[in-house]
Amino acid sequence: MNKIIIEARVNELATRKGNPHVPFLPHEIIADAKACYDEGAAIVHFHGRTADGAPDHDPGFYLETNAGIRAQSDILIHPTLGYVANDTDAKGRFAAIEEMMKAPETAPDFAPMDTGSVNVDWWNPEAGRYDTTDLIYKNSTATLMYFAERIRHHGLTPYLVSWNVSFTRQIEQFLKMGVLSQPAYICFCMTDEIIFAGHPGTTAGLDAHTTFLPAGFDTVWTVVNYKGDLFELSEKIIREGGHISIGLGDYAYRDGPRHLTNAEVIAKIVAQARALGREPATVAETREILNMPEKQIAA
Amino acid sequence: MNKIIIEARVNELATRKGNPHVPFLPHEIIADAKACYDEGAAIVHFHGRTADGAPDHDPGFYLETNAGIRAQSDILIHPTLGYVANDTDAKGRFAAIEEMMKAPETAPDFAPMDTGSVNVDWWNPEAGRYDTTDLIYKNSTATLMYFAERIRHHGLTPYLVSWNVSFTRQIEQFLKMGVLSQPAYICFCMTDEIIFAGHPGTTAGLDAHTTFLPAGFDTVWTVVNYKGDLFELSEKIIREGGHISIGLGDYAYRDGPRHLTNAEVIAKIVAQARALGREPATVAETREILNMPEKQIAA
Repeated sequence: MNKIIIEARVNELATRKGNPHVPFLPHEIIADAKACYDEGAAIVHFHGRTADGAPDHDPGFYLETNAGIRAQSDILIHPTLGYVANDTDAKGRFAAIEEMMKAPETAPDFAPMDTGSVNVDWWNPEAGRYDTTDLIYKNSTATLMYFAERIRHHGLTPYLVSWNVSFTRQIEQFLKMGVLSQPAYICFCMTDEIIFAGHPGTTAGLDAHTTFLPAGFDTVWTVVNYKGDLFELSEKIIREGGHISIGLGDYAYRDGPRHLTNAEVIAKIVAQARALGREPATVAETREILNMPEKQIAA
Repeated sequence: MNKIIIEARVNELATRKGNPHVPFLPHEIIADAKACYDEGAAIVHFHGRTADGAPDHDPGFYLETNAGIRAQSDILIHPTLGYVANDTDAKGRFAAIEEMMKAPETAPDFAPMDTGSVNVDWWNPEAGRYDTTDLIYKNSTATLMYFAERIRHHGLTPYLVSWNVSFTRQIEQFLKMGVLSQPAYICFCMTDEIIFAGHPGTTAGLDAHTTFLPAGFDTVWTVVNYKGDLFELSEKIIREGGHISIGLGDYAYRDGPRHLTNAEVIAKIVAQARALGREPATVAETREILNMPEKQIAA
């Protein structure tokens, strides 16, 4: 069985009400990235946050945090483009990555491409209604082709996020066109509770993703369960040869009454993978599995 | 087994290169609507077209055609809002329906709601690339809630189109909120060849739609296969209790070398449904199955 790529999704927009161990500030994220790396994670993904947990889109946040992570390990960095909050043109959405690419210590390894458009309004489960009604996460074909070109230019690896079957089919067309290289690294997104834009975080929801992996192309897939417990699906994913993207950013993981840290979540998934016969992929092994190119630093 | 609702999708944007029987002008559509009704169709759906087949968005086209259809039968009319070509605000997109609702002879029975957003660029199979790169079919939650309110106001029935799982999940949230009444009439959209925005027109593509029918709510579902042969799936749909939306608008149906007319396509699907034990629903039976309200004419 192939090695398993473990990605630590350390904070997203999660609050500390659910789990007090969610890292916000650069030094907290840097410490978690190292601790997750030590447990077997090969990739780290994080969002900029202020001391009280609000989103922090300051480019300086990402430069400081990337450099801090790099100083402690060679864990691969998967940055954000700012999601629907950064609803500007293609160049503007990619500007933070361009900035990061100016020095080796701040350069990430991946750049995300969410390969389609989808309504992403926030659902309020207590009130039984939407809290927003105008959030369309727009990623036009032209924008995606621009991202792909810049990713290739910088020697980065596209981190392809599929929210539903339409996104996966667009990946297939891009593979046909040569806009994307092989293997395509695809993250199947499942969502629940406060957002219903992805597939449900169930066996059926996962199957309805993986069934449509582009046939005839080399693909590697991982799974995110935003607001759902990925351990309910992890055995299935591990047995089917998938990879795992998990952390406190997605779900307030516990062990009984005790709140887990990100590193403990990674340790738990690594133990499960090993018990099922899959060793965690090191950074070097992850580079090989994904056939990652050499980064081109701009400055 | 319940009766089966047959909808005739007579023209969409189909050319006469594939099948010379595609109706364009009002008198051609009116004739096809009657012929399809005589064969067992309970619903007709059409797009305005000029004599040479170009799209015709003139509201007068729809008023004339609706009135002509009404004069010949009580077949239920399912209009278009103009799809992505009519990319204006919610009120503007619904303006043609408001116009139609001013007289009983032009009033439709359904109004469509495509319950989400999705990239709908046209793929060029010969060239192996996209012909467009900026077509996002945007249906925000706010726009959909506006449509639902106007549909309720007019006593129309929402024709809910789901292109992927995210669209179906938004229908479920609207059912929870009471924005939609029950039963919800859901059309599962499958696409191929020149557009990959829907699910593939395969058994797996259909299953990945029906698996996510909102649990705990009363739903009725039909299937469209845009650019695919729906007869490859029709036995499965009929056996599973689904309904059928089919016609030359979607696929250049033939019988060997012979091009079928819309009425012949309807006759063929009705024969198959009868052979499998399901009679076509009359207009009155369709109204009952879908619990359709009484229309409120404005003028």
